[in-house]
Amino acid sequence: MQGKTIALAKKTPFILIIIMNTDSIQAHIHQMGYEARQAALALSLLSADDKNTILRSMAAGIRENSPAIISENEKDLASARENNLSMAMQDRLKLDETRIEAIAAGIEKVAALPEPCGEILMETTRPNGIKLTQIRVPIGTIGIIFESRPNVTSDAAVLCFKSGNATILRGGKEAIHSNKIIAQILDDAGQAAGMPANAIQLIPFTDRESVAVMAGMDQHLDLIIPRGGKGLIETVVSLARMPVIKHYDGICHMYIDSEAEIDMGVSLAIDAKTQKPSVCNALETLLVHRDIAPTYLPKVAEAFKEKNTELICDPYSANILSEFKTTPAQESDWVTEYLDYQISIKIVDSTREAIDHINKYGSKHSDAIVTQNDKTAQTFLRSVDSACVYHNVSTRFSDGEEFGFGAEIGVSTDKLHARGPMGLKELTSYQYRITGNGQTKA
Amino acid sequence: MQGKTIALAKKTPFILIIIMNTDSIQAHIHQMGYEARQAALALSLLSADDKNTILRSMAAGIRENSPAIISENEKDLASARENNLSMAMQDRLKLDETRIEAIAAGIEKVAALPEPCGEILMETTRPNGIKLTQIRVPIGTIGIIFESRPNVTSDAAVLCFKSGNATILRGGKEAIHSNKIIAQILDDAGQAAGMPANAIQLIPFTDRESVAVMAGMDQHLDLIIPRGGKGLIETVVSLARMPVIKHYDGICHMYIDSEAEIDMGVSLAIDAKTQKPSVCNALETLLVHRDIAPTYLPKVAEAFKEKNTELICDPYSANILSEFKTTPAQESDWVTEYLDYQISIKIVDSTREAIDHINKYGSKHSDAIVTQNDKTAQTFLRSVDSACVYHNVSTRFSDGEEFGFGAEIGVSTDKLHARGPMGLKELTSYQYRITGNGQTKA
Repeated sequence: MQGKTIALAKKTPFILIIIMNTDSIQAHIHQMGYEARQAALALSLLSADDKNTILRSMAAGIRENSPAIISENEKDLASARENNLSMAMQDRLKLDETRIEAIAAGIEKVAALPEPCGEILMETTRPNGIKLTQIRVPIGTIGIIFESRPNVTSDAAVLCFKSGNATILRGGKEAIHSNKIIAQILDDAGQAAGMPANAIQLIPFTDRESVAVMAGMDQHLDLIIPRGGKGLIETVVSLARMPVIKHYDGICHMYIDSEAEIDMGVSLAIDAKTQKPSVCNALETLLVHRDIAPTYLPKVAEAFKEKNTELICDPYSANILSEFKTTPAQESDWVTEYLDYQISIKIVDSTREAIDHINKYGSKHSDAIVTQNDKTAQTFLRSVDSACVYHNVSTRFSDGEEFGFGAEIGVSTDKLHARGPMGLKELTSYQYRITGNGQTKA
Repeated sequence: MQGKTIALAKKTPFILIIIMNTDSIQAHIHQMGYEARQAALALSLLSADDKNTILRSMAAGIRENSPAIISENEKDLASARENNLSMAMQDRLKLDETRIEAIAAGIEKVAALPEPCGEILMETTRPNGIKLTQIRVPIGTIGIIFESRPNVTSDAAVLCFKSGNATILRGGKEAIHSNKIIAQILDDAGQAAGMPANAIQLIPFTDRESVAVMAGMDQHLDLIIPRGGKGLIETVVSLARMPVIKHYDGICHMYIDSEAEIDMGVSLAIDAKTQKPSVCNALETLLVHRDIAPTYLPKVAEAFKEKNTELICDPYSANILSEFKTTPAQESDWVTEYLDYQISIKIVDSTREAIDHINKYGSKHSDAIVTQNDKTAQTFLRSVDSACVYHNVSTRFSDGEEFGFGAEIGVSTDKLHARGPMGLKELTSYQYRITGNGQTKA
């Protein structure tokens, strides 16, 4: 009876939410978890061809249902206007023909990527004759908790599906209508092409309680990936009983060494900061060696001025840049991800001081050194404890596409399982398969 | 001033515990965490030779100080007798010449293992000319929380050290004197041979509060590995903000297929159950196909009888074994890790039913099929969601030594980062190092 109510609830969640209390929300989400686990086994047995056929069917489904998506998205946009959401927020929510085509094309691109599962990672025959094979397999079930962008519904579900995992999505309330129709299309078009039922499920609730329920059900979810602001990630980290892969801030640094090539240092800093300031791999803090500061800083400040970038300076750099408009840096600036046309600047006395500053204040994301001295560069690369460390390259390359992964689900600032850009392989686990002819330990 | 008090506290913890409140315990452990992070950077820069020299010095230190270890261990044994600890517990605590020599030899063995760090996992030059290298690096800082066996102090610290990580150990109160002297010897002998300070630290507190403090300091610890009973692991999982790698129960199954070779099925079941019942890779549940049960079960029951093993049977198997003494199985038996001469037995109608039983009741550790049919075996191996799956081999081989890793820190029942036996490689992370000549994204 319980199961039947749940099934009904999944079809018409909005009618039932009204009469559902916390216990029944929990029962509903746990039932989804149970079903995801069942789907995971069926998914793990699909061939690469099966999966790619299903993905192409999903892409076609998205394209065919473009008018319906736009119509549901309009409901979210109307709420956004009513609630006076910022224009940036409204823009993030919006789906038009171009963006829907990008979603469909994105799915086809994932279909074209190499199959991640089944790869033999290690194979050996032990002295007693047993054959040991370490093989790449799906993780199983993955929970994705995200905020406003509705395209995440498709991007995340499709990457998890291609890597053989069942997914439970929980999006933000701002995009609930858009999320629901996209998930429904992926499910319908997927199942029409042979996808197991419940491989992709969207939680119809957007309250905090649903996050807590997901984070607690480690029997049903092998992994949770929160995609959103620090508040969301903190909540998930505090509550989760299963592994969480975090994509925290990118407080990225560039260190201009005393032996830097000045023009390269200017060009790299401008690119890393201003080419797209709103992303996690954009530069936030520029560290400059004291010896090169008097020649380098005025040049880079001039270039930043052209890009209308605010210079937030420690006393030493402010002094050198006395002819420019600068803002005094506070201690809090060293841990601030501006995501805007703002940069903090600090003078350091040595490479070691730069390394220590980055390891203390950074977010273990992406950090660069600019120098012509290879030995100094090696020391920096080996000592900075970040996912991606760069020598004479912009930090903006920390990205699954740029790394050649074809797609990414995010950039992990964790050090366990997946570090840096996460592609399909990072959404897999492995299993040891051992075969023999009766070997015993005794 | 705070720092000074802390340093003092580390030298004479027992005097200060009396006057330390919860806040100062927290401050003490956080200070240790801060120092571990500093040590981690120094550790990551050591060469393989440096590390192996340090390890050999530690082994010599353990051997030279054998009488002092035995004398401190006697204090723990005296408390154990006073507190009426079980004989098994007292035996686990005990360190004699032989066991101390085994600790020293274990360290030398780890020194002789291949260096895990520095391995190039991937290397590619992207079309824009940037060179991308994925390189194996230490994780950084690892917390080990363990219970009574004092040899874990050395085993865990040494594996973490060889893989370039700083370790904070927190052992159980039963072994505190033994743990402290072992940690002190490793630290003294290690530093005498060039080990950075604070690379191996033991928390001098054994209360629950110290576990909570460790689990909360994700700024200082990259990973926690609890080694002990389910209660300890549950506590750590509930509290931890950083990744936890769990070594839960081994509820291991063996499925005797209808096409099994009967004698092999008997020999493998006896080995997996009785060769050493107290370990996590020992067999707990035997699943037998209905068609083979009438011929197989009496044979295996006879063999189990010789090993004084209790047969805990479902009604169908009990019926077949009516001439043997059996105990009726309860639902709880399917999730019980006996770790003793007891085995639960269930009849199944198909391979699929066996797979479903294992995925429902098992602990994702090690499970085996016995069959002469390769196709059936492949279905089983692909469908059972466990770290190690076996075909015609005893589950007792789930072990780092048997897998050729040289040593192990445990058998992970997690699916993220490390699954199954964890050796040195599983104690590492990776970093992307990117070099170029001024490449910008724009």
